[in-house]
Amino acid sequence: MDIALLGGTGDIGEGLALRWAYDTNHTVIVGSRDAGKAEQKAEEYETELDSRGQEVDIAGLSNEDATARADVVVAAVPAYHLTDTVEAVADHLDDAILVSPAVGMKRDEDGFHYNRPGVGSVTELAAQAVPEDTPVVGAFHNLAAGRLANLDAELDWDTIVVGDDGDAKDTVSELAEGIEGLRALDGGPLSNAAEVEGLTPLLINVARHNDGLHDLGVRFQ
Amino acid sequence: MDIALLGGTGDIGEGLALRWAYDTNHTVIVGSRDAGKAEQKAEEYETELDSRGQEVDIAGLSNEDATARADVVVAAVPAYHLTDTVEAVADHLDDAILVSPAVGMKRDEDGFHYNRPGVGSVTELAAQAVPEDTPVVGAFHNLAAGRLANLDAELDWDTIVVGDDGDAKDTVSELAEGIEGLRALDGGPLSNAAEVEGLTPLLINVARHNDGLHDLGVRFQ
Repeated sequence: MDIALLGGTGDIGEGLALRWAYDTNHTVIVGSRDAGKAEQKAEEYETELDSRGQEVDIAGLSNEDATARADVVVAAVPAYHLTDTVEAVADHLDDAILVSPAVGMKRDEDGFHYNRPGVGSVTELAAQAVPEDTPVVGAFHNLAAGRLANLDAELDWDTIVVGDDGDAKDTVSELAEGIEGLRALDGGPLSNAAEVEGLTPLLINVARHNDGLHDLGVRFQ
Repeated sequence: MDIALLGGTGDIGEGLALRWAYDTNHTVIVGSRDAGKAEQKAEEYETELDSRGQEVDIAGLSNEDATARADVVVAAVPAYHLTDTVEAVADHLDDAILVSPAVGMKRDEDGFHYNRPGVGSVTELAAQAVPEDTPVVGAFHNLAAGRLANLDAELDWDTIVVGDDGDAKDTVSELAEGIEGLRALDGGPLSNAAEVEGLTPLLINVARHNDGLHDLGVRFQ
């Protein structure tokens, strides 16, 4: 499968690109608003993987060109760039699935807090920005980017997948479980996304307040 | 330590009462608006523990009398009864710590959703209802009551402890870790309680949508 990572030069995009390229046979395409930056990052990822004995081709393209080539498009951008980013690629989505991992947060002196958009969740913001027939799936909201991008680090995490299109959810769940140590759990429809997104600031708060814990994810058990 | 469980006849109260009585040497006091019901439930818990070779005395009292005898008071009541329950015992708290495990949720056809009170969280509602010098700690929000109350079931869960009084948090964390299989993690000040409470509807949604998963808690790792 061909996976485009919009914002694939950022932290969560880097982690997903490296893990899919290392753990699976899927084709990874790095997208960015700046095609040159995408190309440069794609080369860095290739070098990193090559040093681990994994020879792969990773393309670096503009977000639009990356989208046009992909079966699955992950909008790995900050929440405040999500709508713009998705609208900019909307005409190139064709039959692709759009995946939203973004979470809106605000920070005060006590910690991080979930910044819930009026529409219900950031994932639902993404759903408003795509053409009507594009399936939108929320996933990968609760992964610590640092550990995800460190291929020496073992994962032992769950990711909750939400969406209204069962087939699209199945596809994204399979992609998620292609990453070693990641289990995909069904969180129900898109309208359940807020509670998934709200877990991310909690992970950060717990990491900040407990010595020895950092780069946290969760297991549901 | 003497622990009063207000609403100790309900599901989360039952679980905490049984676990503390079984796993620790703390004195458990069951409270209820109806002292007779509290006494009856306390006897049931004694019988259950006795059948497992644990002979303990568990008192069953009115919420007010239970509070007056306790070092730590857990308001194990539904969110919509919390303020009334805490206000009714406020004059009996003396130097006790008040612990709030309640979560406000609403349900629609898709799943459960966090119902955040205007004051920020249910835990902060509890803080508004106690005398100014009573320390309030949020804990035990994310425990599945059914498994907690089943002493045959092993736990492998975290509970996040929030509060503005460090000593009170330490006391509650120690009580939590007295329960076998429970790890207490610091979530920061009371103002971080909303993200902790918001995890509970997510646990329920995940349990509803995944075969083989039920009575879920989480491990942060």
